[in-house]
Amino acid sequence: MIKVGIVGVGTVGQSVVKILQKNQDIISARAGKKIIPAIGVVKNLDKKRDIDIPLTTDVNEVIENDEIDIVVELMGGVKEAYDVVKRALQNKKAVVTANKALLAYHRYELQEIAGDLPLFYEASVAGGIPIIGALRNGLSANHIESIVGILNGTTNYMLTKMIKEGVSYEEVLREAQELGYAEADPTFDVGGFDAAHKLLILASIAYGIDAKPEDILIEGIEKITPTDVEFAKEFGYEIKLLGIAKRNNDGVEIRVHPTMVKSSNPISKVEGVMNAVSVVGDAVGQTMFYGPGAGGDATASAVIADIIEIARGNSSPMLGYKKSLERGLKLLKPSNIESRYYLKLKVLDKPGVLASIAKILSEFNISISSVLQKESKIENRVRLLLTTHKCKEFEIIKAIAKLKELEWVGDNIAMMRIED
Amino acid sequence: MIKVGIVGVGTVGQSVVKILQKNQDIISARAGKKIIPAIGVVKNLDKKRDIDIPLTTDVNEVIENDEIDIVVELMGGVKEAYDVVKRALQNKKAVVTANKALLAYHRYELQEIAGDLPLFYEASVAGGIPIIGALRNGLSANHIESIVGILNGTTNYMLTKMIKEGVSYEEVLREAQELGYAEADPTFDVGGFDAAHKLLILASIAYGIDAKPEDILIEGIEKITPTDVEFAKEFGYEIKLLGIAKRNNDGVEIRVHPTMVKSSNPISKVEGVMNAVSVVGDAVGQTMFYGPGAGGDATASAVIADIIEIARGNSSPMLGYKKSLERGLKLLKPSNIESRYYLKLKVLDKPGVLASIAKILSEFNISISSVLQKESKIENRVRLLLTTHKCKEFEIIKAIAKLKELEWVGDNIAMMRIED
Repeated sequence: MIKVGIVGVGTVGQSVVKILQKNQDIISARAGKKIIPAIGVVKNLDKKRDIDIPLTTDVNEVIENDEIDIVVELMGGVKEAYDVVKRALQNKKAVVTANKALLAYHRYELQEIAGDLPLFYEASVAGGIPIIGALRNGLSANHIESIVGILNGTTNYMLTKMIKEGVSYEEVLREAQELGYAEADPTFDVGGFDAAHKLLILASIAYGIDAKPEDILIEGIEKITPTDVEFAKEFGYEIKLLGIAKRNNDGVEIRVHPTMVKSSNPISKVEGVMNAVSVVGDAVGQTMFYGPGAGGDATASAVIADIIEIARGNSSPMLGYKKSLERGLKLLKPSNIESRYYLKLKVLDKPGVLASIAKILSEFNISISSVLQKESKIENRVRLLLTTHKCKEFEIIKAIAKLKELEWVGDNIAMMRIED
Repeated sequence: MIKVGIVGVGTVGQSVVKILQKNQDIISARAGKKIIPAIGVVKNLDKKRDIDIPLTTDVNEVIENDEIDIVVELMGGVKEAYDVVKRALQNKKAVVTANKALLAYHRYELQEIAGDLPLFYEASVAGGIPIIGALRNGLSANHIESIVGILNGTTNYMLTKMIKEGVSYEEVLREAQELGYAEADPTFDVGGFDAAHKLLILASIAYGIDAKPEDILIEGIEKITPTDVEFAKEFGYEIKLLGIAKRNNDGVEIRVHPTMVKSSNPISKVEGVMNAVSVVGDAVGQTMFYGPGAGGDATASAVIADIIEIARGNSSPMLGYKKSLERGLKLLKPSNIESRYYLKLKVLDKPGVLASIAKILSEFNISISSVLQKESKIENRVRLLLTTHKCKEFEIIKAIAKLKELEWVGDNIAMMRIED
């Protein structure tokens, strides 16, 4: 018998308790042991909850309780959660956590503290999709070429609406808030931070890189307009908020930003609140993992899978490496990433404009891949849409700055990265 | 250090050796141990191979060799392979196999023989996609509602061609044979048997069911015409060869057949030689796993992932259950499955025909969902296309038999199952 203590009994915590009870037959057959949700730690005992286990407000009743084998951390936040997980590990308890922010900041310290104890976190990335297991175990023979993921359901729901219905960012945000998909302060989701936390976890397993959110490029979806969406379609692309980690000759790029994704890429078809992660390995080629990225039951599915693995006595190295890589890969600075780019300009309608722009781009080693020119409603201006071949981020930034100085271009230049 | 002996050094075996050598740095960091491909067993020593390990024709040099820790069985076939795997296990060696036919027939016996020894087989289903791990570990908290998979790359390549280019089955088969995607005798692939072997393995992990290929419904793609493909599109479906395992109130259905799949279902978009498996769990909801289902390197990726898991000391129960389920689920007879159906008839063009057909169907508790009537080139005949609501397989079979007796219908009725 395995006794589980749950710290934080919100939506996911309640699902964990209910599924452990409802699916007890199959879970104990698979684990080889009965698994009992024994006690929950909450802030407020009076809050109504639809579950039947003893509750306490004292976390020590779990982490210092000799009868508890596994501590499930679902409280969220970073500082307090770090303390709980650390003390649970020090008390020789296995830990399961769904806390992506905690891991985005403290995964390497916690790995150190855990030592040989299991510290599992399948639920921290992409909810019910077993992507941690896939990357850490299923694809472990591969040098990972790239990870490209839709890691945030809220923003994917919003972008899907914008693509399908042509509505504005503001309108779709209001609707997502009404439906409970977006928070009152939506920054964490729409700003790309949630996706970044998850991406950093995946990038550690793939590349062994200890980066923090502050070290990487993070851009949100706030500035995307229906025009961008429409023009993307004309070029054969969909706009998605992607988390991208990839290896190139110089190092590893880790970045989160709105991206124009080629319509033939299966990840461009992932709609609504669903998540998907595409992983390319040097042996396996392209794989993709798709499923619900949030929700109480889906997340609980991942939490309980970890509990079952611990009950079976399995313990993969937390971040995928039993011993550290001899030659560590280095994280590239955001300005050193390479991408193809989409540029949207509003320029004066006069001869030679395109030639002048092409010339400026070429000064920064940027060559144009495709061009679309549209009449604009503003008199004497045309809208010019460009896509470039692959170039360095710092060069496109310099080129945009130089273009903005030209009076016939003006300040209104939008840029988006492209993933084929 | 872990020493691996490889029995059968064909395309996959050679990839296993090469990737173990090429990715040695990352593999040993992940496994915590150096993994050495130490010896290979072949039938013909003179055949040219592009690898650098000692070879022998004597399988005992691997399975009776005290220095070998893991035996990788890649010889194929059932009888001889069973003998090799059994003897390796009896000699206390861990075993990794990619042999789906072996497992389709002998998985429960081998599980028994293996006992606590690892007997891993990630590569046996869907090549490089880590679907065994996902089902056995990542989704272990769930009662599995359904597994729906494109499990055979050859037939998916052929159907994709038929869908995109409107070519005939015969033409696309000839082309697939020229490209090496289909064998000279293509029965194993086009008849659905390869997919059935894989499906039976997945169904065991999901439901603990010990079925053999002979026990389940298996239909191939040989009878699909360009007309079927075209009409499917008009109804909003694509035709795919699916392996389906699902639980209903009476038991478990396991079946392989060409299927009309709704275009909104992500599995309908899987093209060419790619594989995909959709798994619905009661907690997680719908997940999907996508990737290359065959090829030397992709399959080797899965074989080596198993080797790394064994090196890490992990050992999940072979078929997912540490102890058997108390209430076993029972396999439904093929005639007892339930589905929606598509019917294609050629009927005399006279009043009341549709009403008469609807009446006959209703005698067998079958109600019509949609109808499409098309002019036919054959004089005085119209082509009638129906889809039905869900009904029992034995009732649709009886209804078709009765319809065939009517002189104004005639013998020419085609049926296909539908998956929404």
